[in-house]
Amino acid sequence: MKPSLGVCYYPEHWPEALWETDARRMAEVGISYVRIGEFAWSRLEPTAGNLQLDWMLRAMDVLGRHGLKVIVGTPTATPPRWMIDKHPDMLAVDRDGRSKGFGSRRHYDFSHLGYREESARITRILAEALGDHSALGGWQTDNEYGCHGTTYSYSPAARDGFRLWLAKKYGSIEALNQAWGNVFWSMEYNSFNQIELPNLLVYDAAPAHELDFRRYSSDQVAAFNAVQYEILKNRRPDLPVIHNFMSRYSEFDHFKLGETIDVASWDSYPLGHLAGSDEAAEHKALYMRQGDPDNAAFHHDLYRSVGHGRMWIMEQQPGPVNWAAANPDPLPGMARLWAWEAFAHGAEVVSYFRWRQAPFAQEQMHAGLLRPDSEPAPAYGEATRVARELAEIRLEGTASQGRIALIYDYESEWAWEIQPQAAGFTHGNHVRELYSAFRKRGLDVDVLPPSTSSFAGYDIVAIPALLAWTDSMRDAVAKFDGHVLIGPRTGSKTAHFSIPTRLGPDLPQNLLDARVARVDSLPAGIEVAVKGGGAARLWREKVEGSAEIVMEDVEGLPVLLCQGKLFYLTASGDQALVQRVADYLIAEADTPTLALPAGVRCRVRGQYRIYVNYGTGTQTLIPAQDEVGYVLGGATIPAAGVSVARCARAD
Amino acid sequence: MKPSLGVCYYPEHWPEALWETDARRMAEVGISYVRIGEFAWSRLEPTAGNLQLDWMLRAMDVLGRHGLKVIVGTPTATPPRWMIDKHPDMLAVDRDGRSKGFGSRRHYDFSHLGYREESARITRILAEALGDHSALGGWQTDNEYGCHGTTYSYSPAARDGFRLWLAKKYGSIEALNQAWGNVFWSMEYNSFNQIELPNLLVYDAAPAHELDFRRYSSDQVAAFNAVQYEILKNRRPDLPVIHNFMSRYSEFDHFKLGETIDVASWDSYPLGHLAGSDEAAEHKALYMRQGDPDNAAFHHDLYRSVGHGRMWIMEQQPGPVNWAAANPDPLPGMARLWAWEAFAHGAEVVSYFRWRQAPFAQEQMHAGLLRPDSEPAPAYGEATRVARELAEIRLEGTASQGRIALIYDYESEWAWEIQPQAAGFTHGNHVRELYSAFRKRGLDVDVLPPSTSSFAGYDIVAIPALLAWTDSMRDAVAKFDGHVLIGPRTGSKTAHFSIPTRLGPDLPQNLLDARVARVDSLPAGIEVAVKGGGAARLWREKVEGSAEIVMEDVEGLPVLLCQGKLFYLTASGDQALVQRVADYLIAEADTPTLALPAGVRCRVRGQYRIYVNYGTGTQTLIPAQDEVGYVLGGATIPAAGVSVARCARAD
Amino acid sequence: MKPSLGVCYYPEHWPEALWETDARRMAEVGISYVRIGEFAWSRLEPTAGNLQLDWMLRAMDVLGRHGLKVIVGTPTATPPRWMIDKHPDMLAVDRDGRSKGFGSRRHYDFSHLGYREESARITRILAEALGDHSALGGWQTDNEYGCHGTTYSYSPAARDGFRLWLAKKYGSIEALNQAWGNVFWSMEYNSFNQIELPNLLVYDAAPAHELDFRRYSSDQVAAFNAVQYEILKNRRPDLPVIHNFMSRYSEFDHFKLGETIDVASWDSYPLGHLAGSDEAAEHKALYMRQGDPDNAAFHHDLYRSVGHGRMWIMEQQPGPVNWAAANPDPLPGMARLWAWEAFAHGAEVVSYFRWRQAPFAQEQMHAGLLRPDSEPAPAYGEATRVARELAEIRLEGTASQGRIALIYDYESEWAWEIQPQAAGFTHGNHVRELYSAFRKRGLDVDVLPPSTSSFAGYDIVAIPALLAWTDSMRDAVAKFDGHVLIGPRTGSKTAHFSIPTRLGPDLPQNLLDARVARVDSLPAGIEVAVKGGGAARLWREKVEGSAEIVMEDVEGLPVLLCQGKLFYLTASGDQALVQRVADYLIAEADTPTLALPAGVRCRVRGQYRIYVNYGTGTQTLIPAQDEVGYVLGGATIPAAGVSVARCARAD
Ligand SMILES: [Zn+2]
Ligand SMILES: [Zn+2]
Ligand SMILES: [Zn+2]
Repeated sequence: MKPSLGVCYYPEHWPEALWETDARRMAEVGISYVRIGEFAWSRLEPTAGNLQLDWMLRAMDVLGRHGLKVIVGTPTATPPRWMIDKHPDMLAVDRDGRSKGFGSRRHYDFSHLGYREESARITRILAEALGDHSALGGWQTDNEYGCHGTTYSYSPAARDGFRLWLAKKYGSIEALNQAWGNVFWSMEYNSFNQIELPNLLVYDAAPAHELDFRRYSSDQVAAFNAVQYEILKNRRPDLPVIHNFMSRYSEFDHFKLGETIDVASWDSYPLGHLAGSDEAAEHKALYMRQGDPDNAAFHHDLYRSVGHGRMWIMEQQPGPVNWAAANPDPLPGMARLWAWEAFAHGAEVVSYFRWRQAPFAQEQMHAGLLRPDSEPAPAYGEATRVARELAEIRLEGTASQGRIALIYDYESEWAWEIQPQAAGFTHGNHVRELYSAFRKRGLDVDVLPPSTSSFAGYDIVAIPALLAWTDSMRDAVAKFDGHVLIGPRTGSKTAHFSIPTRLGPDLPQNLLDARVARVDSLPAGIEVAVKGGGAARLWREKVEGSAEIVMEDVEGLPVLLCQGKLFYLTASGDQALVQRVADYLIAEADTPTLALPAGVRCRVRGQYRIYVNYGTGTQTLIPAQDEVGYVLGGATIPAAGVSVARCARAD
Repeated sequence: MKPSLGVCYYPEHWPEALWETDARRMAEVGISYVRIGEFAWSRLEPTAGNLQLDWMLRAMDVLGRHGLKVIVGTPTATPPRWMIDKHPDMLAVDRDGRSKGFGSRRHYDFSHLGYREESARITRILAEALGDHSALGGWQTDNEYGCHGTTYSYSPAARDGFRLWLAKKYGSIEALNQAWGNVFWSMEYNSFNQIELPNLLVYDAAPAHELDFRRYSSDQVAAFNAVQYEILKNRRPDLPVIHNFMSRYSEFDHFKLGETIDVASWDSYPLGHLAGSDEAAEHKALYMRQGDPDNAAFHHDLYRSVGHGRMWIMEQQPGPVNWAAANPDPLPGMARLWAWEAFAHGAEVVSYFRWRQAPFAQEQMHAGLLRPDSEPAPAYGEATRVARELAEIRLEGTASQGRIALIYDYESEWAWEIQPQAAGFTHGNHVRELYSAFRKRGLDVDVLPPSTSSFAGYDIVAIPALLAWTDSMRDAVAKFDGHVLIGPRTGSKTAHFSIPTRLGPDLPQNLLDARVARVDSLPAGIEVAVKGGGAARLWREKVEGSAEIVMEDVEGLPVLLCQGKLFYLTASGDQALVQRVADYLIAEADTPTLALPAGVRCRVRGQYRIYVNYGTGTQTLIPAQDEVGYVLGGATIPAAGVSVARCARAD
Repeated sequence: MKPSLGVCYYPEHWPEALWETDARRMAEVGISYVRIGEFAWSRLEPTAGNLQLDWMLRAMDVLGRHGLKVIVGTPTATPPRWMIDKHPDMLAVDRDGRSKGFGSRRHYDFSHLGYREESARITRILAEALGDHSALGGWQTDNEYGCHGTTYSYSPAARDGFRLWLAKKYGSIEALNQAWGNVFWSMEYNSFNQIELPNLLVYDAAPAHELDFRRYSSDQVAAFNAVQYEILKNRRPDLPVIHNFMSRYSEFDHFKLGETIDVASWDSYPLGHLAGSDEAAEHKALYMRQGDPDNAAFHHDLYRSVGHGRMWIMEQQPGPVNWAAANPDPLPGMARLWAWEAFAHGAEVVSYFRWRQAPFAQEQMHAGLLRPDSEPAPAYGEATRVARELAEIRLEGTASQGRIALIYDYESEWAWEIQPQAAGFTHGNHVRELYSAFRKRGLDVDVLPPSTSSFAGYDIVAIPALLAWTDSMRDAVAKFDGHVLIGPRTGSKTAHFSIPTRLGPDLPQNLLDARVARVDSLPAGIEVAVKGGGAARLWREKVEGSAEIVMEDVEGLPVLLCQGKLFYLTASGDQALVQRVADYLIAEADTPTLALPAGVRCRVRGQYRIYVNYGTGTQTLIPAQDEVGYVLGGATIPAAGVSVARCARAD
């Protein structure tokens, strides 16, 4: 699919007289796709059963006349007010037991079957009415599942669903008691109907109780999506069904939900995401106008994997947003850079959010391509330039396979949130730190699910901080002939959140003769230096076994162990240690690297290597051996600059 | 009215045998006014309908015999326990949905009409019984409306009231949907009865929803007061009805409530207020025994405006209080300084809180003029000295009109709390920073309401961070021939909390040709230096238009624009920038200034300029050109010192 | 009683086939006592009335066969799930009004009389069934009363109980109104049935209201324990009934509960306790692998007092725990050091928690003597060594009486939490700081209850920050001929939480002619230096009277006053000041001290002085004059080392 630009548009927000001009200007910018409808339920059905779809058909007519393809969003993230009267118990309940009301968005409970049927109904209606429109280019289901912490609900509906889900999973209450370790504090149940949700307890619930609740809740999101997917797919098997995911959001398993989408899109707001992250203050200050240099890329690679190779940016930040604590203006050029980087990582469409800044309601301080007075905002020109450049440089295929594979696992995120043992220890941070370390060496990284059963084609596979092995993942490691980095904490639990019989990392001795005999977790701010550079922080394991010691810390504790091509990292490291370990593996695997200037990153797509400069100053690129010159920009790359080199290897 | 001292007294706390001695000693100190009764409902009506007013009449007799005038407070801030049985739903509900119970004070909901009637009933009873007492000097309504966060209630009573208020304001639900921008996320209502209060939502409510709820809540406070005012005023049209407001408290619109009081009083606790403020730690440490040098003065000027020119201090801190995180002893002399400063700003009465420290209940660690053992506390002597000095120096009239006018607006406080866009951006801080900058130059500042329709007589008018123009305020700017400073953010919204069609600052081009094209908001700790000194922080606007650039920052962004005598500040500044801007305006307006030593402030009242030294060391005053010598103190002013100079100009 | 080792064991967690091996290995380690059963209710009574005690009898058989004595815990901290169906209102309600559910532990309300009867029932059943077992060595009631904040419940049951308790205490509502000072804000009640619990108020409750609620709640814990005590004691008058208390836990009065136990045990987790404390960050970093050098000792001395001279460690940390924010590995040797220190302070038994690390449920990351795979963890060897050493060195009697007595009072903890006046001011910190200051001089300190009526035998008695005098304590001071240190804040209130008529410190003039005329409380970070060294912080009193000034601060305020042998400290000090004051008293009292290296502490038991080194480096001891050589270790004491010297004096 030819890389294209898109934009998010709300015809219901503007006088109909403006639609024609808007569509014309979109086409002038070079936009191909327009997402509409995802918050429009109160206009599509102002009162129960009173359907008003004509305006949307007219909007699609106008957009279609200007050659634009329309992505129609199902409006289920914003059920109208009358729906609450129909289903008073459809509102989600928060962890404190408070029902969360109408007046913003996402005010529904994924476990509420009545609302799930309403969602099917409006989806059917839209599919029926709009499915044959010539401008229709695809569908978006709902909007940002889970946003505003809405995956988990502690409602009666969720409790009832959870009980059924557990009964199905465990078959007998004895099996559940056994799996959860309920004997521990007399937490044993006599029947599934006695089980409550794990909130408002005196102290921590059993971790398996918490983990199963997260699994259950994740499954409800997937089930909710599946209903819409089936309807939309049946109506137009040729058109993609898409959902727009978020950044660093892990409350449900996106890989599982990915089973009922055709394309994974995500909403990329680099400045807001950095501002709201737990990155260090200096890092935030350095990149406050560019965003973290690896975060968007990581999500491109993650969601390309979730989307079975197909990835869009459904919402691309065009200027300041409204929802972070502070909302700076991006550096001039970033709206172009972010789009180019997304395309480099395989994006089919980059769609800016939004066409025109709304002068009213919650997001009135959120920039668009146009200002509220319809004058062009800075991103208007940047988008126009991207469209022109895309027309000149014909990016094909999708992102090339990387040399590095990295496993990312939602259950591991949940597990270490439930029992961090060291406050601040997270699965995601381990994954992202390794991602960044490899990428700083110019290496393309693929982010793979825990269901991956083969690592063929990769030089290096990294599996950090994984809750529990599946048989297939253990097999994949066993039969892989490249280099593997696992740990810390990888395989330290069973799927039922207990310590495995042979202790972590729970691999057969012929693969890795190592057992975690003890964990030494450290308070934030305490570090133990590693000989040769870097330091352990938060997490240190004392490991027994015959594996060879590659690195050790100043207290003599092994930090990196190795048995053949399998490496085990016993500690969570600071940036220097993580980089050293990545570099060590790279050297062992003999994987060629690039010398990238600070703040510069790159990705190969087809025959092109696309460079982007997240730094605040101009840098000079050293052309890689496989490059035969630049088709955009050059070796001198300014702040927010993009350079595209053609690679010989793909010729 | 001759400046006088007062004191707060609770005869119900002490044996009746002690009253006589107390009254005699009050008279010896030089006290003229005694406030009583405002927490005494359970003694006035121990059970429903069982009225016991005799003791209060006897207390008034005793006080009157010693020449003291009594201010009677209505006891409605402390409904007795039996009232809750009568009106179980009169308790307010907090933002988390929890009903707040009996056992402290202010346990009532302003929206509860049953309690509003009880409040009228007890007010009528007191008015009737005490109205002719010869010692009666005035009334206080309730006590510190809104204290302990009690303006907002999320009760059924508030919800019902809000719906009626909205129906009256908007007429049709379509008009409300339009005004709030409810189309944005399908938040449209079909009827007023569907509208809920803006708490316990999944995400932010529409800002206009929040703003209207604040307006509604504010109106209920005013309505509650109006009921008492009418009763008291009808009974004794000659006596003042007063309410005692607080420091930096903005939950309701004091100017609106001011329509039903004769005198605005406030409760000045400089140490507690500084301790509880968001001032910087070093500032707090420097002034921990004196209070912020500008905060009391600002409120004197604000409440003088709220009170139509009449202002009292109803409660003046006499020593350590009990309610801050830590409660230091004031510097010796501060109880005198604070009183003198209040008189300088026009106070008619400064009333110390309280006569004797209570040895029991919540405030037992709150100092009084007497210790619990009836020995004099330090403020006893200081009050005595103030009384003597007041007798010697005959202050007349009220505070003189300042050369500077500053607009303070409660709705703007609410608006920027609802959507700060940069965490930490507040209306109040902008106003107070400018107040301080002008005042440090020895200039008297008047704080005016947004309803001000003429700026005649002022050299400079400042209108910082104002939500929205009213026609009258825009007209006042247009016809004013002095210098005007507006911005940042001034006029950036309509009254319905949306971006105006011509964008902020929303003035006609002939007044100011400037449009805010973009806002760059900055995280705390990030600054952009301004050429020539100072820095922008939190808020930066990129402004288009033909207005002349007076200052710009190091990134080339205009910071101060000017068109004729109208200046627009595009950024929120650090202290240095705010001072530079104030100084620039002062110079442009050719307003004469004073060279005040650090920590010293002054105010002119009538023919006197009163200097106070908030610093910890002795300073030397440079006499102003209009001064003809000191009538109290002198050019050498010690810490906590007061010097009063006579000015020639008023002679 | 011969000092012995113990261990906590959960036969219900392991296959019965493993019990035999476990028992054998316990005996090999040298363990004498095994605590079982305290969380096993769901196995003892899987459904209501369905008793299954056989397995426990078999477990006791196995243990008994290996010479082990069994402590049986009543399982009332973990009522099974079916109990909630039987008594749905037995769940406690938190301060926010939320009922806290089943799924962890301690999910019961001490005020719920139905559950109190269930607790009696299961206790009777266990007493009956197990009381004659030959392996039975004693009983533990419940587990860690109050853990996870469970002393206070705001339930209807608690409210009803509180009303009855108040009616009994005050007799008439008028007496209560008077005692609480309810006239203050019309808080007066007409009947006891109007009184609510002091949560969810608009503002602070009357402090006496809060204090009485704490007293009431404390009494319910004691009443709950008394029921079990009576049953167990009646069954086997010869066996000790024990409860296991916690560190720095003050929600109920342990001295009062101590009336119905024979031995006070406590659960010592030095690393977790330090991590969760409010100690300074550097202190935490320095001792993160050892624990605070004085905290365990303080609790040994406290609980020895609570236990009428008998003290056990029921749970001793053996390695990393799971429940702090981070959980470091102890220094090698600490599991031995902690045991030796406990024995030095009089422990009869030190029982490690737990035998084997559980691979499942909430505490799966909590180390044991064995790893989950049954291999020895490091503490296994350390315990074995302690057992061997104990066999060699025959410690006899209990801890020797110290020269210093220190009063610790739970009501004072509550009082200063209710009204700190300076945030951070606590009773416990004052007590522990003095404890540490004396102990650093090698002095043994006894921690005594406020009911102490004679100080005979002590050199120095310290009574810091005591809420209110009892007559007996005042008498004890009057007739004591040693040196006494009181203050700051001591005696500043009556038992009804009001200021006493003669003001604090409220002693007769012939004892101490001093009156606190004013309190100057200071924000954290502000200090006032004291002449000669040290500084006042948080709390400063201005005291009148004729007592002699021993120390004063740089502002001329007296800091230490003295009248005869009675000293009054007017300020809370930093560590240097507290040490100076302790040293001054020591010098005045002519009490001999030891010169201990940094990090080293000691305690005398019988004829032995036991030294422990909490530091991270080796230190050299200077033998005391009364020592005649070492029976364990020597003058060179490594990190985590123990040296035991024999003293001549006891020979
Ligand atoms: Zn979102
Ligand atoms: Zn107040
Ligand atoms: Zn515990």
